[in-house]
Amino acid sequence: MAKDQTTNPKARSWINVDPESHFPIQNLPYGIFSRRHEPKRACVAIGDQILDLALLYDEGLLSQGHIPFNVFALDRLNEFMACGRPAWQSIRRRLFEILEEKTADLRDNRELQKRALIPMGEVQMHLPVFIGDYVDFYSSEQHATNVGSMFRPDNPLMPNWKHLPVGYNGRASSIVISGTPIRRPNGQILPPNEEKPIQSASKALDFELEVGFYAGKANELGTRVATSDAEDYIFGLCLVNDWSARDIQRWEYQPLGPFLSKSFGTSVSPWVVTLDALAPWRVSGPRQSPAVLPYLKYSGKWRFNIELEVWLQSEKMSAPQRICKTNFKNMYWNMAQQLAHQTINGTNVQVGDLYASGTVSGDKPDSYGSMLELAWRGERPIALNETGETRAFLHDGDVVAMTGYCQGDGYRVGFGECVGQIQPAKEIA
Amino acid sequence: MAKDQTTNPKARSWINVDPESHFPIQNLPYGIFSRRHEPKRACVAIGDQILDLALLYDEGLLSQGHIPFNVFALDRLNEFMACGRPAWQSIRRRLFEILEEKTADLRDNRELQKRALIPMGEVQMHLPVFIGDYVDFYSSEQHATNVGSMFRPDNPLMPNWKHLPVGYNGRASSIVISGTPIRRPNGQILPPNEEKPIQSASKALDFELEVGFYAGKANELGTRVATSDAEDYIFGLCLVNDWSARDIQRWEYQPLGPFLSKSFGTSVSPWVVTLDALAPWRVSGPRQSPAVLPYLKYSGKWRFNIELEVWLQSEKMSAPQRICKTNFKNMYWNMAQQLAHQTINGTNVQVGDLYASGTVSGDKPDSYGSMLELAWRGERPIALNETGETRAFLHDGDVVAMTGYCQGDGYRVGFGECVGQIQPAKEIA
Repeated sequence: MAKDQTTNPKARSWINVDPESHFPIQNLPYGIFSRRHEPKRACVAIGDQILDLALLYDEGLLSQGHIPFNVFALDRLNEFMACGRPAWQSIRRRLFEILEEKTADLRDNRELQKRALIPMGEVQMHLPVFIGDYVDFYSSEQHATNVGSMFRPDNPLMPNWKHLPVGYNGRASSIVISGTPIRRPNGQILPPNEEKPIQSASKALDFELEVGFYAGKANELGTRVATSDAEDYIFGLCLVNDWSARDIQRWEYQPLGPFLSKSFGTSVSPWVVTLDALAPWRVSGPRQSPAVLPYLKYSGKWRFNIELEVWLQSEKMSAPQRICKTNFKNMYWNMAQQLAHQTINGTNVQVGDLYASGTVSGDKPDSYGSMLELAWRGERPIALNETGETRAFLHDGDVVAMTGYCQGDGYRVGFGECVGQIQPAKEIA
Repeated sequence: MAKDQTTNPKARSWINVDPESHFPIQNLPYGIFSRRHEPKRACVAIGDQILDLALLYDEGLLSQGHIPFNVFALDRLNEFMACGRPAWQSIRRRLFEILEEKTADLRDNRELQKRALIPMGEVQMHLPVFIGDYVDFYSSEQHATNVGSMFRPDNPLMPNWKHLPVGYNGRASSIVISGTPIRRPNGQILPPNEEKPIQSASKALDFELEVGFYAGKANELGTRVATSDAEDYIFGLCLVNDWSARDIQRWEYQPLGPFLSKSFGTSVSPWVVTLDALAPWRVSGPRQSPAVLPYLKYSGKWRFNIELEVWLQSEKMSAPQRICKTNFKNMYWNMAQQLAHQTINGTNVQVGDLYASGTVSGDKPDSYGSMLELAWRGERPIALNETGETRAFLHDGDVVAMTGYCQGDGYRVGFGECVGQIQPAKEIA
């Protein structure tokens, strides 16, 4: 592969970017924004500003590449994604160039800068992608083992787990952008030692820390995506909070899997970080044993060294407390394998489909990606140090903020935040 | 409720309709059609013809009602559905009027007739609705008991089954219109008495006879749909073939439910039969015991007396053989309960979402809605009388045709057919 200058650690923009910012010139993640009563359109993040891509295109700064029309003027990234990997790379190179120290096009055009660069605080971010179908995997061995050992002590990992990336179809309609409040769900719960369920608000509301990817290419129904072709199908990654109601899940999930315990809401980060931006943090491994079937074999580096954290703030707290620190490289199954598995039966991927990793848990107790594991089913509640409160599961008013970034030498390529606050359940009339 | 003239058994159209046709004036099911190189648009079926609604609207025959613009000129029914129940009923009344014996508007306008009425053989039907999310239920007690007894002899019905309509999210992208060939899926299978899976084409390919409904109204995320409001949310019904690979399913489904065993393809009938057209065939029951929780209580007639059949034709046969005869009124959980359950946690329904009933099985061995049950896991293969062949599961080249209708006095209100032929699996390179 030719050296990609857009990930050069030494590159600098004429825009000042803090070393702890998630959005240096090496990142350039995509999002959909709006300001006041203006229409939604596409942007990239740079430092603490956003760059209006629809405007750049209109001004002739982005006309090269393989873009058929001003796809950035739409309210979703799907049409840009559908342009394909060469277009993603050509636009990324051009945006990098425009923002690089030495390039005068925008740097020396104050009038255009005023219109094209907007402080993040002045814009509203929106769901970046129209998501047709949503698949949620279960690809962390530690998470599957932790949860399995709670519910099936003799048999924590199912016999299929190391042979295929277990997954299921999630609900696409209730995927919301970071910042959207999450209402505590009602549902059926079986109280301990009872035989009949009750209808109740969930008493075991949880988050799940996940990393997702958006498909940027479609295959025809009846064909499959090989692991060696996966890069063309992966536009970029995001943070996902797969909110889960454990008590509803426990009662409903046999035999057809989780349904209402998940479908009340799923949060995604506003920023989509491209595979190209993440290239320097690709790492090898893990060794998969037993050996996987031929269609799941892959080559290349398919783990990603992304630091992940979860922060919790109760209504009484003045600042959030970090309750989980883990890393995306902990995953057993990778994205290329997930795509190859999901399409081995001929399923058609659509541009904009979302795939989530499953909860990312490490091997230390503070690296687990859900409260179910962090508080071990309520047996060791999380202490909130500022107020002396404890948490086994989420309370109304709690704010959960996930964040993730790759650490470079003096800079970070990150995802920003994925945040949601718990609202009280609605009364069931 | 005021007597609805559009279901009057004595009504006759000036168009000749065979007593065995599924499409008398009392039906008027909606679909999306195209002819030659013309754009897709909406129609209703009448006898063996279709009536072009986009043209009728343009000619001023459909301008009344609550229709904001020519929603019939679009390639999907979603925008018409989004107009709401009063619009559905007003358009239905007007179409009924136009087609009734006594109405001259179209009857006496030969020139317009020539353009607006097209023989079914001359048009191609398309997926009628853009389906955002797809939910598949499991609402036949007989089916759940049959399948459960094969896999869990001591415990056929899970403890939750009589308390909630068990369901799961299906794959929306691979829902196809009747007539689309279905490719035999590849996947992972655990051979009998082995510990390691192989990658293979499915050897246990099955159909599932189901009835679906399309949502015609959206609720806001965080709110619920009460059973008493369900009628406003149900635009109409269709036939669904939930193709299933039993060997893939058996290996993959624990603990997160069926995934690749279903996602390779789901067929729907071209015609959407409205709730209003089915009104005369609504019946009561069943008694649900134990009593359901308050949010699942309902009033009114929510079972539907729809005769359902499955026909199978191998490549060697000259005509199909009926292998299943059952009735949709066999279902334990009804559509109002399914919607109320699915939204009790605040899930947002979207216009165009598809809900399938789960396999419809009766209590006689020839009334089971899947081959798994009809051939009882291969223990009593189905005999194909014409050729002496037998079937435990589907072979390449087999054609499965589902049909359904309500029998009136001298007329039928039906769904037409939902058909698919099995193509050989693709080689895995």
